[in-house]
Amino acid sequence: MTFRNTFTWVLSALAILPLYATANIDITEAPSRPKNMIIMVGDGMGPAYTSAYRYFQNNPDTEEIEQTVFDRLLVGMASTYPAKESGYVTDSAASATALATGFKSYNGAISVDTNKRPLTTIMQMAKSRGMSTGVAVTSQVNHATPAAFLVHNESRRNYEAIATDMLQSDADVILGGGQKYFSEALLGQFKTKGYQHIDDLAQLESIAKPKVIGLFAEVQLPWVINDVDANTLSRLTQKSLELLSQNDKGFVLLVEGSLIDWAGHNNDIATAMAEMQSFANAMEVVEQYVRQHPDTLLVATADHNTGGLSIGANGEYAWDSELLKGISASPSNISATAIASDEWQTGVSKSLGFELSASELQQLSNARMQGDEALQTALKKLIDVRSNTGWTTSGHTGGDVQVFAVGPAADLFKGNQDNTQIAEKMMTLLPKKD
Amino acid sequence: MTFRNTFTWVLSALAILPLYATANIDITEAPSRPKNMIIMVGDGMGPAYTSAYRYFQNNPDTEEIEQTVFDRLLVGMASTYPAKESGYVTDSAASATALATGFKSYNGAISVDTNKRPLTTIMQMAKSRGMSTGVAVTSQVNHATPAAFLVHNESRRNYEAIATDMLQSDADVILGGGQKYFSEALLGQFKTKGYQHIDDLAQLESIAKPKVIGLFAEVQLPWVINDVDANTLSRLTQKSLELLSQNDKGFVLLVEGSLIDWAGHNNDIATAMAEMQSFANAMEVVEQYVRQHPDTLLVATADHNTGGLSIGANGEYAWDSELLKGISASPSNISATAIASDEWQTGVSKSLGFELSASELQQLSNARMQGDEALQTALKKLIDVRSNTGWTTSGHTGGDVQVFAVGPAADLFKGNQDNTQIAEKMMTLLPKKD
Repeated sequence: MTFRNTFTWVLSALAILPLYATANIDITEAPSRPKNMIIMVGDGMGPAYTSAYRYFQNNPDTEEIEQTVFDRLLVGMASTYPAKESGYVTDSAASATALATGFKSYNGAISVDTNKRPLTTIMQMAKSRGMSTGVAVTSQVNHATPAAFLVHNESRRNYEAIATDMLQSDADVILGGGQKYFSEALLGQFKTKGYQHIDDLAQLESIAKPKVIGLFAEVQLPWVINDVDANTLSRLTQKSLELLSQNDKGFVLLVEGSLIDWAGHNNDIATAMAEMQSFANAMEVVEQYVRQHPDTLLVATADHNTGGLSIGANGEYAWDSELLKGISASPSNISATAIASDEWQTGVSKSLGFELSASELQQLSNARMQGDEALQTALKKLIDVRSNTGWTTSGHTGGDVQVFAVGPAADLFKGNQDNTQIAEKMMTLLPKKD
Repeated sequence: MTFRNTFTWVLSALAILPLYATANIDITEAPSRPKNMIIMVGDGMGPAYTSAYRYFQNNPDTEEIEQTVFDRLLVGMASTYPAKESGYVTDSAASATALATGFKSYNGAISVDTNKRPLTTIMQMAKSRGMSTGVAVTSQVNHATPAAFLVHNESRRNYEAIATDMLQSDADVILGGGQKYFSEALLGQFKTKGYQHIDDLAQLESIAKPKVIGLFAEVQLPWVINDVDANTLSRLTQKSLELLSQNDKGFVLLVEGSLIDWAGHNNDIATAMAEMQSFANAMEVVEQYVRQHPDTLLVATADHNTGGLSIGANGEYAWDSELLKGISASPSNISATAIASDEWQTGVSKSLGFELSASELQQLSNARMQGDEALQTALKKLIDVRSNTGWTTSGHTGGDVQVFAVGPAADLFKGNQDNTQIAEKMMTLLPKKD
């Protein structure tokens, strides 16, 4: 990590440039180094997703296109390629390792290097400085991204070992899904270590201090599109901030909109847009926190692009975001309901928010006879055709992702950088060890 | 254009921040406003293109991934949507109108508003201040992007009228393709107005002062991949800078890598990467000029994304840039040669730079029997499969594009902005009118 030496001058420069770096904040209150740092990851959220979200949330009744939190906070971009042996297209494990440790590794690695030796994470560094740490995610808490911030493992697939090792991370807040990976015995060990354990979102209110492990679903949390008002990631984020703020030495928090990626893998634009909305809302919660706490830095990024999403496809210069706004359930939910009912057409049309043509009904009817998977695929294809959305893959793609930042030293993250440099910069901003 | 008022404070702030904004340049030499401005447009060059180019130009024998000029100069991103009536996906005319005038218009508009009334361009504003202007492009000079900077027309398709109207633009340098649109009579009028006319790149050396109209191809310039060493866009750029620099009042120059977009429309990754290389080289020419002339600002961007390009496709986490580097001719050239020869297999394999499998040979053979178009399509498909490149459309897509800048006031372009704001900011940087 020789990079740290090369940009020491930037840090020095920052000290004499508070006016420009934080023009909207009272200079006397804004330090050049943050006390608290929040890293937010929109999993799979390549640039096409944030542009698409702008048009998805646009109010068509106004002349202008409304800005999003992504527009307000954009400062740069980051390359995401993994260690050489894995080529140019990263998986979530290698990219999370880069963001958590500042090192490239192979696809599948959970904060271990290419020789499978553990790499020090920013969460470990924060702990060694007496700071608090936490993760709040919409996947299972032992999925690749949160895993790389809290543990070390040679494979992201070792879910049980990763869950067990989380006990050693000493993280103050662990919120997300993943009940199936945490046995009663393991949860007992968490409790012995002083953790409060909850498994229902309603219990969140009752938690007034760390530590807490909250697992709110068997595996990942439900798709946002099926319950938009739940606002779960914002609630998890708000609670994390409330709990971690109690440490006078500061905190490092990871918040992940994990399921943007999952919807992208499914090439499911309606579901993806709802997940984007949920992540944007959580970013606004943190943005607001930063405005109220000028000693806090937010850095947000994506770990990679998923799906090869494009706004427009098939030679047509159009994208129908209004149609997407009208869809009120995930294709998986629409399909499950349609399979279970003989009078399925009305329900499908109602959930999609538009009238189906005779040929569209015929396509769906044919697919329905082949079962749930075929019907889901047909529904997604129909939505893609109607909205003119493009995809190139069920996997990831290798384009750069955006970097968003606000708070002290936010300017450090401007321009182009590698994803490992995001971690390096954040690590340099940690307080000196006692 | 109320935006200008809203960021007046930024301009004021810039005056007191020369250290940070221009850290590598002698402060005494770097003014807060540029004397000269160069806008470079990579037509269709969405973020996937610049990432792909990084991996395309990477030296696999070194451990690190080499930085590109895009990496060095990235400062922000821009939205590209056209006027409301044209939806969210722009064409090159509406986006060029935005970049040249600061106003949204409909797809097809050449610097006219949605009521087809002419909009003042930055080139007109520069002329009214006694500055010089020029365009250097790889398409015909009357194609959408250069057209929107120099003339006004209700449709980009009115090529003859646009060519004729260029006479009134008083531009000092007009370099590119488009011989077929400029009759002897029209060229006579240009000469009467004091223009030197050339139609061969070798004549470029002989031009020592403005004005000049140089048309080096019937329509667009040849694909770079078929003659990489020609370095045409760099030569046109270099000559433009040399000629325009002669005006003490400064200049505004448009340079466009026009054919990145054309290769994207063709879903032709090998040809697109060579066009990217040519544009990157031209950007380095300008970057070097800016380093030597601290009174010059470079702003580079794309007008939109083309093709829905993705680095990786079809569920595979890989992209073979080495294979692309080995391709030494465009699919169109390879096909034309193969159609004309009975012993075509060896030539095709040699041009592609790799051995063809039996099934690949069979596919090409079948396509060849259907003719040139089918063989070109088969060749592009083969290259996509081998390199694992994805496309979603033969048209444009609506994602944001990157913004690159270096020189005085480069910081104005950082973060997120709309493409109209790029023009507004550049216009605000023009000198006050006498």
